[in-house]
Amino acid sequence: MFTEEEKDAFYKVLYRRRDIRTFLTDPIPEQALHNILLAAHHAPSVGFMQPWNFIVIDSKEVKERLAWAADKERRALAIHYENETEKKQHFLQLKIEGIKEAPYTICVTCDPTRGGSHVLGRNSIPETDALSTACAIQNMWLAACAEGLALGWVSFYKKQDIRDILEIPPHVEPIALLSIGYTKDYPDKPILETVNWEKRRNVEDLLYRNGWGNR
Amino acid sequence: MFTEEEKDAFYKVLYRRRDIRTFLTDPIPEQALHNILLAAHHAPSVGFMQPWNFIVIDSKEVKERLAWAADKERRALAIHYENETEKKQHFLQLKIEGIKEAPYTICVTCDPTRGGSHVLGRNSIPETDALSTACAIQNMWLAACAEGLALGWVSFYKKQDIRDILEIPPHVEPIALLSIGYTKDYPDKPILETVNWEKRRNVEDLLYRNGWGNR
Repeated sequence: MFTEEEKDAFYKVLYRRRDIRTFLTDPIPEQALHNILLAAHHAPSVGFMQPWNFIVIDSKEVKERLAWAADKERRALAIHYENETEKKQHFLQLKIEGIKEAPYTICVTCDPTRGGSHVLGRNSIPETDALSTACAIQNMWLAACAEGLALGWVSFYKKQDIRDILEIPPHVEPIALLSIGYTKDYPDKPILETVNWEKRRNVEDLLYRNGWGNR
Repeated sequence: MFTEEEKDAFYKVLYRRRDIRTFLTDPIPEQALHNILLAAHHAPSVGFMQPWNFIVIDSKEVKERLAWAADKERRALAIHYENETEKKQHFLQLKIEGIKEAPYTICVTCDPTRGGSHVLGRNSIPETDALSTACAIQNMWLAACAEGLALGWVSFYKKQDIRDILEIPPHVEPIALLSIGYTKDYPDKPILETVNWEKRRNVEDLLYRNGWGNR
């Protein structure tokens, strides 16, 4: 079905993808933006409900307000990390700057009412709508990497601030803020590994056979 | 960074991936299983917490019990779809058979305590652990496709039944049951589109600029 070369190319993208925090302000080709949004839209979704919307933000004013919301949360979070090293403190700052630098930030949302009252599968496990949206985000992330673009997932904010800034209806969930742009240094390893925040686990330690705890 | 051929190969995998419900019982090469688990493990995770475990199920007895739990939920669900056509009723049956046919079913779990009490990012938005796990599932799904394998996400069950069968601790979330194997017909379109359950939306209708509702 796929040649060895195609498989290798696919895995090359999968293993190259990183969470990026610093961006060049250079514009992104419209075609690349279209490609990554279309890739996101072709993710699987429970009952084929396609619960996502994509709010593409390029307004300087809106980006400033998102950065304000993220910075507010960063400062609140910093209190929980006040005994950490200065390097880690600095690290917390990076994502906020990323929102302002990147030419685009995309807010990916999930509408739990999409597809009506009895979406197949979601009927049993309601949060499968948000999980589907995360699959779309992963598609977008890999596609951005394939396009030579960098993507950073910002997860410091209060959802209600994002709803207020982007006028998102109360029943719709803002799932992620993703900054997208070019970057100077696309690192080989996760930044959190490089700054010694956390190590990659050995996959063998995460596998069980036929039941929890069975090796 | 990537050649046009590599980009094309990546997108070929991304657009080829489907949710599959019928499997051949043929065994899967251990290398392919290893590749897709390693791909899953290289997903992004909030604060690099890597909250996932993978319970690889190949025991006939355990698969029978999982199929029992899914069938129980299917029959409960069917009541909500009793006015649908026979074709749709039949469709509900397929996933359960898939669990028994496929050589492997993988339960992907999320441990919210992984990485300690103050995981970066998760501190602000607790459900980012489950969203990270969904990113791992999407990596696994695409990798399975690249390996020429079929994957089906089963989302009919009560979580507590899955916890009981697989002895998953109460604080750990079973996020998905994924059946994996070879298949005879790998369809070009989502099965739910083919059986006219739901249509694919136009991506343009899902895009907004700088705020909800702005085209």
